[in-house]
Amino acid sequence: MSSPDTLARLEATIAARRSADPDSSYVARLNAKGLGKIAQKLGEEATETVIAALTEDRKALVGEAADLLFHLMVLLGAKDVALADVLSELDRREGMSGIAEKAARPKA
Amino acid sequence: MSSPDTLARLEATIAARRSADPDSSYVARLNAKGLGKIAQKLGEEATETVIAALTEDRKALVGEAADLLFHLMVLLGAKDVALADVLSELDRREGMSGIAEKAARPKA
Amino acid sequence: MSSPDTLARLEATIAARRSADPDSSYVARLNAKGLGKIAQKLGEEATETVIAALTEDRKALVGEAADLLFHLMVLLGAKDVALADVLSELDRREGMSGIAEKAARPKA
Amino acid sequence: MSSPDTLARLEATIAARRSADPDSSYVARLNAKGLGKIAQKLGEEATETVIAALTEDRKALVGEAADLLFHLMVLLGAKDVALADVLSELDRREGMSGIAEKAARPKA
Repeated sequence: MSSPDTLARLEATIAARRSADPDSSYVARLNAKGLGKIAQKLGEEATETVIAALTEDRKALVGEAADLLFHLMVLLGAKDVALADVLSELDRREGMSGIAEKAARPKA
Repeated sequence: MSSPDTLARLEATIAARRSADPDSSYVARLNAKGLGKIAQKLGEEATETVIAALTEDRKALVGEAADLLFHLMVLLGAKDVALADVLSELDRREGMSGIAEKAARPKA
Repeated sequence: MSSPDTLARLEATIAARRSADPDSSYVARLNAKGLGKIAQKLGEEATETVIAALTEDRKALVGEAADLLFHLMVLLGAKDVALADVLSELDRREGMSGIAEKAARPKA
Repeated sequence: MSSPDTLARLEATIAARRSADPDSSYVARLNAKGLGKIAQKLGEEATETVIAALTEDRKALVGEAADLLFHLMVLLGAKDVALADVLSELDRREGMSGIAEKAARPKA
């Protein structure tokens, strides 16, 4: 059952596993290989998301988008960036965008 | 102020703007240009996220990660894929991963 | 010993192996998996080239650039695009660019 | 008229323009913006090549592949990596691959 805090829970899980035994945790393994490896995985998953969107069905896109989000969370974790900061940035922009739309209304 | 439902709100905003006037809405403009353009933007933002993680400060990474998430939401919207489906997939994997970790425990 | 026709030879090799036994040829294996897989490999190698350029030494960049060129050649081959057409396009642009520079000279 | 040394000539042109006036040269402008910007352009062109291969005609792919090659050459130049080194690496691998194929023959 999905819920709004899936990403918050995932963030906590990733933080907990980061220093786990690389033999038993994929997140620990990625972190042990370093930021370059994590960034590479993000790039790969983005390419796969692009390809799934253009050539595959919606089920494949769901899987690739989940992979992309997962590796974005691992990358943010490795750089000590909180998901909340990224969401705040999205909120800030949406607020600005609302203001921008009001300002643009006379044009319409 | 960020909250767990930033992404749900963003999803609704993107859905509402998809058929807006391309002159006043970036989302409408992207959708008018087609799926290839949206996918291209996702790829670009992923590359910028990779570069920010490797060479810039955390503030830059926050901005690029927000761009990446935003364009992922636009791509999902353009393919009629609900964010809830992607979050469910992440939940499903985390459940499986928990089971896998229990199964692996005797090794430890 | 490298020479200007390395890429022409590589193009011929790729064309010859495309329909080889996937068990004995990487090129045949990629082609058997389809264009999506070939495109995915190109995207991966581009990401690795970006990361090598930003974080690794020149030897690593040489290796990643070779991987990227190789998979670009496989992709072109799979779409029946001749390398000569891509080189002609580069020549055409360089010609235009030369003209553009002459036109711009009075500014200098 | 294309010829095997298109890339060698392009390499010389890029080297010559690297320190030109950014107002009159795209190569100078990219280099003035730094390695991150050049790497970003490479990533963008790779994404566009992927999308062209999957959704557009061969003419579009020719154009995107030319863009990708051009920006790869700019990136190599910015890191003082000679194209000859990348071609030598491709030659070396093809030699190894030939040996590998001979070794594998008994399987066939």
